[in-house]
Amino acid sequence: MPDHFDHTVAGAGRDVLAALQAALGDAVLAGEAIPTRNLRDWSSMDAVRPLAVVRPDSTEGVATAMRVCARHGVAVVPQGGLTGLCGGALPIAGAVALSLERLTGIEEIDPAASTITVRAGTPLEAVQQAASDAGFLMPLDLGARGSCAIGGNISTNAGGNRVLRYGMAREMVLGLEVVLPDGTIMTSLNKMLKNNAGYDLRQLFIGSEGTLGIVTRAVLRLFPQPASVSAALCGVASYAGVLALLDAARRELGAQLSAFEVMWPDYWRVVTGMNGVRNPLAGEHAFTVLVETHGSDAAIDPGRFQDWLERQAEAGTVVDAAVAQSIADVQAFWRTRDAAGEFVQVLGVHESFDIGLPVGAIDDFTAACRDALQARLPGVIALFYGHVADGNLHIVSNLPGAATQPKQAIQETVYGTVQQFGGTVSAEHGIGLSKKRWLPYTRNPVELDLMRTIKRALDPAGLLNPGKVF
Amino acid sequence: MPDHFDHTVAGAGRDVLAALQAALGDAVLAGEAIPTRNLRDWSSMDAVRPLAVVRPDSTEGVATAMRVCARHGVAVVPQGGLTGLCGGALPIAGAVALSLERLTGIEEIDPAASTITVRAGTPLEAVQQAASDAGFLMPLDLGARGSCAIGGNISTNAGGNRVLRYGMAREMVLGLEVVLPDGTIMTSLNKMLKNNAGYDLRQLFIGSEGTLGIVTRAVLRLFPQPASVSAALCGVASYAGVLALLDAARRELGAQLSAFEVMWPDYWRVVTGMNGVRNPLAGEHAFTVLVETHGSDAAIDPGRFQDWLERQAEAGTVVDAAVAQSIADVQAFWRTRDAAGEFVQVLGVHESFDIGLPVGAIDDFTAACRDALQARLPGVIALFYGHVADGNLHIVSNLPGAATQPKQAIQETVYGTVQQFGGTVSAEHGIGLSKKRWLPYTRNPVELDLMRTIKRALDPAGLLNPGKVF
Repeated sequence: MPDHFDHTVAGAGRDVLAALQAALGDAVLAGEAIPTRNLRDWSSMDAVRPLAVVRPDSTEGVATAMRVCARHGVAVVPQGGLTGLCGGALPIAGAVALSLERLTGIEEIDPAASTITVRAGTPLEAVQQAASDAGFLMPLDLGARGSCAIGGNISTNAGGNRVLRYGMAREMVLGLEVVLPDGTIMTSLNKMLKNNAGYDLRQLFIGSEGTLGIVTRAVLRLFPQPASVSAALCGVASYAGVLALLDAARRELGAQLSAFEVMWPDYWRVVTGMNGVRNPLAGEHAFTVLVETHGSDAAIDPGRFQDWLERQAEAGTVVDAAVAQSIADVQAFWRTRDAAGEFVQVLGVHESFDIGLPVGAIDDFTAACRDALQARLPGVIALFYGHVADGNLHIVSNLPGAATQPKQAIQETVYGTVQQFGGTVSAEHGIGLSKKRWLPYTRNPVELDLMRTIKRALDPAGLLNPGKVF
Repeated sequence: MPDHFDHTVAGAGRDVLAALQAALGDAVLAGEAIPTRNLRDWSSMDAVRPLAVVRPDSTEGVATAMRVCARHGVAVVPQGGLTGLCGGALPIAGAVALSLERLTGIEEIDPAASTITVRAGTPLEAVQQAASDAGFLMPLDLGARGSCAIGGNISTNAGGNRVLRYGMAREMVLGLEVVLPDGTIMTSLNKMLKNNAGYDLRQLFIGSEGTLGIVTRAVLRLFPQPASVSAALCGVASYAGVLALLDAARRELGAQLSAFEVMWPDYWRVVTGMNGVRNPLAGEHAFTVLVETHGSDAAIDPGRFQDWLERQAEAGTVVDAAVAQSIADVQAFWRTRDAAGEFVQVLGVHESFDIGLPVGAIDDFTAACRDALQARLPGVIALFYGHVADGNLHIVSNLPGAATQPKQAIQETVYGTVQQFGGTVSAEHGIGLSKKRWLPYTRNPVELDLMRTIKRALDPAGLLNPGKVF
């Protein structure tokens, strides 16, 4: 742990603990009372024991905790559902972990404005459910939905499976309430799609991984529930064919296009060998593409989707295709993507990547990356798949039979190739702790300086989630 | 002109002029050579003569100008197409006006990434045309399209007619190049929809009205050209009916819904009396609503739109309707909205407002605002119309027969009512100079403090567009 994380000494630690307990009572857990769950997140990083875990159940409680810590010069790590993959919510020794887990609940659904107002600790799935119960769709969705908190989704600008249709978390946030590093509460719970009255302060806190402020409440956009969902798995013979299919989908399926997931053959071979994964396609294809639409007319949409697909087959773009005939089929098709979450069972320990590239460059990147990996680590496995329409590629890689995985060599090779292609080292997972080293591969010195300028301006004492991001 | 605008004295003025001319030659215009067009924008504010107008034709030229001015402590006002309505680009006496008008041109269209890379001074219409020539839609559109510059659209987070379908300028910007107040060039020309590698620095410069940096280049998202456009003018009997129609449009027209414009009866009566405006509806309605869709299937969409409209008529939501049978009809329907730009011809001098409110509160607001105006200024005219689905309402108001318009009383009354209803004093036009006084009606002291913190951090010497926004 670098020195600058060590914001407390034993004396200051005792003082701040007493002050927190005086102000917040049993919201403060220390010593043996600190729950195991607060010691780590879903990254593979080692658990860290914080000075205390504070779990306020109100914005005022969060502000009080932050104010007390600021007065004592003790750092604070905000925690939501602890499902982050890069260590952004990992505790810091000597710092306070401020968990939003008790700041939960839906405050309001406004049907005319089409908004939902939520407290930051509410699990994503509970927000989705409340929206659904009111006849709306809260479109943000990702695998961790049952555990992740909406405040964490906002703080990390979560993406997920339907960014193409609905945008990332950033696009869904209309208003925010944030506790600043000195404990000031900034309430900016705007409900309007348009508000150009001064700087758009929301943007500072979305995706900055809890380093500039702690999100306590949010107003989110709601959408109508889709009246129809159509999906197909398509075999395509070349990347030029993938791009032609994407162009046709954008033009002819229009705004209904909700997913365009591409799987490379090595990936497809592994995933279709897994338990519970069906391969509805005959033969082997250079690319397998999952196309999905969210429509608003159940009578028209399925036929229209089928016609579109037939045109792609007639044009030779699609070599083979399976169309979902039911919601069960749609789910089965998605299983070919979601099963990636269980790769550890078939591949063992491996490195996972979440990178971004200009769409046109992705296949050249995969070839260059595969070559570079093989040259450095002969026999290495590298599986490619991703939300290609968003420019977002995932890679899973390991060296079969290695006593210890060559983690460093794999990372250097992949991120080095990302840098050559002008891509990003993090499309949706953020930087946290584990990707800090690679941030300069994707952001230039001027960008990094400006990030530091913003950090210093909002958090001059460096108390909020220090050492994360940069 | 308040004192803090006066950043130069005659001596410093001479020095900086000589230094600018030495560095940039005939890109620098001073004294009699300063063009009249650079003295004011489309606000009604008085012309101001700057120390000089500098018109670089490259990013490096912009950086050089900024660096020279910073060294001499001379303020800089960035200028684009000068079509702003709030004085954001109005020169400051003693400061340099830095016009982007010669930094023009399209650098690249990337069909696979679906992006266009443009220089900041390029007129919006030229960007639209280049996209169209390449088979794409650049959806940002507003009345000033022929004159406004894309850099200005970005710096003011322009909205316009199709925000509902495509978002504001903010949602279209994938990457930016910006010259910072010390002349540093920050190049961040990202092409990916997803990039969570550190803070999203773009957001600082979008909508901050040239107070934090000067946009020099941008990567923008492109969309497919719509295959169909459908439109109808609908008579609706109550605001509850308007909200029911909006809900049905959101649910059943889905993502194709591109406009939902509502016109109150006083507005409708004035506008349909104007030259070249047709009223295709019989009788008088409490509300007239223009509904438009951008579809992707020319064979299916018109029938679907017609069916949807018939269902609204059967349900009693729509009392009378006219459906566009041609593009000429669509344009004629839009003329009922666009003619608002010519109100000066029928109303004479008047105040115009661009405010925002939660959608459900808009009609109560109009009633309260009308009452408050009548109470203070008996006989006052107030016409209401706007992009209601976005929560964006425009108001035009004047006192017929007044020797001098009671500008101040009208503004106080309207903005005071906006404040009561928790709305925004600027939905899309920004703050500039003319709305500074009203900013605290919509942003609280904590928000305003944070804006100032950001300004100080990025522009510690206060050299970039000082005195604008706050």
